[in-house]
Amino acid sequence: MNEADFIAALRSLPLHPGAGYLRDDCAVLEIGNETLVLTHDSMAAGTHFRNDADPFDVAWKLVATNLSDLAAKGAEPVGVLLGYTLGSDDARFIEGLRAVLEEYDAPLLGGDTISGTTAQTHGVTAIGRATHVPVPDRGGAKAGDAVYVTGPLGCAMLGFEGDAPHLEAFNRPRPLLAEGQKLAPFVNAMMDISDGLALDCWRLSAASRGVGIELKSALIPVADQARFDECIRWGDDYQLLFTAHPAAKLPIPAIRIGAVTPAEDPALWLDDDILTPDHGLGFQHR
Amino acid sequence: MNEADFIAALRSLPLHPGAGYLRDDCAVLEIGNETLVLTHDSMAAGTHFRNDADPFDVAWKLVATNLSDLAAKGAEPVGVLLGYTLGSDDARFIEGLRAVLEEYDAPLLGGDTISGTTAQTHGVTAIGRATHVPVPDRGGAKAGDAVYVTGPLGCAMLGFEGDAPHLEAFNRPRPLLAEGQKLAPFVNAMMDISDGLALDCWRLSAASRGVGIELKSALIPVADQARFDECIRWGDDYQLLFTAHPAAKLPIPAIRIGAVTPAEDPALWLDDDILTPDHGLGFQHR
Repeated sequence: MNEADFIAALRSLPLHPGAGYLRDDCAVLEIGNETLVLTHDSMAAGTHFRNDADPFDVAWKLVATNLSDLAAKGAEPVGVLLGYTLGSDDARFIEGLRAVLEEYDAPLLGGDTISGTTAQTHGVTAIGRATHVPVPDRGGAKAGDAVYVTGPLGCAMLGFEGDAPHLEAFNRPRPLLAEGQKLAPFVNAMMDISDGLALDCWRLSAASRGVGIELKSALIPVADQARFDECIRWGDDYQLLFTAHPAAKLPIPAIRIGAVTPAEDPALWLDDDILTPDHGLGFQHR
Repeated sequence: MNEADFIAALRSLPLHPGAGYLRDDCAVLEIGNETLVLTHDSMAAGTHFRNDADPFDVAWKLVATNLSDLAAKGAEPVGVLLGYTLGSDDARFIEGLRAVLEEYDAPLLGGDTISGTTAQTHGVTAIGRATHVPVPDRGGAKAGDAVYVTGPLGCAMLGFEGDAPHLEAFNRPRPLLAEGQKLAPFVNAMMDISDGLALDCWRLSAASRGVGIELKSALIPVADQARFDECIRWGDDYQLLFTAHPAAKLPIPAIRIGAVTPAEDPALWLDDDILTPDHGLGFQHR
């Protein structure tokens, strides 16, 4: 099976109501008069990080990508569980873990350590507490909303290619936790851009139903204007993508890049072009 | 690093108070007026399951071992998150997942699906709701307690070796959720036996401080009396091990196998023999 087929099959299983039919990166769990947000991401050597990657960066990115999912929910971290495969410079991994847990005040709750496999695969489950309910998701965009991003796209791409000023964007992405918490009361839909602006806009449109997204290329901030098309298709930037009423007075600076419009089917326009998943919108199968 | 070194290093990181200093299989999280129990276990092809294992069994065991950790806490499942590496008969894995989730009323909350690694590694985070507080742990054994197990040891070993009547014990272990919930109000310490009776008794002694465990070999139920020593050292049985006041009227049948005695350092006796980790108590580094 490919990933899409597998997730479709998972949807036939007993699902928790908080799973949101597996349409979102996070589950939302009402428990003990609190609302918890839970997410799990895995990373494998050779697929999600190079075999010669600095284990410090691997640890940082593993936790940061999970925290970015919490950020898009306006949640604050409660803690993380780690599933770790021994085998590289484990002490260096610990140092990266220390740095990211301290930076984002996300204590370790537990986990599991295994050994003996040929390819290291690590997983993190992050648990957060919602600071605003209803918890934002990607399905709330309304026709008439403005579409925003919190920062430029394509920085991680340049970092991946070795461009010195952008190395950190790729190796040690920053989950926008404070920004997500501030934005949560103002947004109609929100998600983090993990797989590229174009693909994630498409997903937001698809999840919101009855709406399309119209992007204006002149408004979209990119790291390299000469490579605009790549910048909006490359993932790993972890900026927040959100929609809000155009008159909303946002609590943090954000860049307006387009509008939500009525549409019968999921739709994405870039200026006068219609983009569809058939055009290769982003990193769909990682 | 080996696993013990790595866990020691993890203890130097920012830890959540509910992590119990990483001494237990589960974290305990007070949320509002509820107490959640969280655990994460990973399994890798070639290490934790054979490369030619039936993916149905792999799915079952992956979830069941996590639910067994909840059982030892007297918790009832809320849901599970799955980290899955594509690559075997994924449809068959889904069927095993369906069976175990339905059997134990543990709905899927979310997760992550990845591809592209040479060795499949899967992880599950299970979340449960405590049915009794304080939540039992392995650190509560008191001198004078009786020591109990819920059933025979060594069944999984025979199943691993291909013995037909015991195949299921190895391939599809049964987490004792109902039993754990019933026992929770009665026990002073409880854990599941994942790494063998001897090693897990040692750990219980070490966690409880000031006590040792005296086991009587004639009382210990094993699957094959001729291989007693192996049966008490082989893991994967997932019976519950617990201590309780000897006069406690237990709510379910259990087998009394020994007693808790005062001891300055962690100690384990089997009849007149002293057992220590140096004697190879069980599956310590899996």
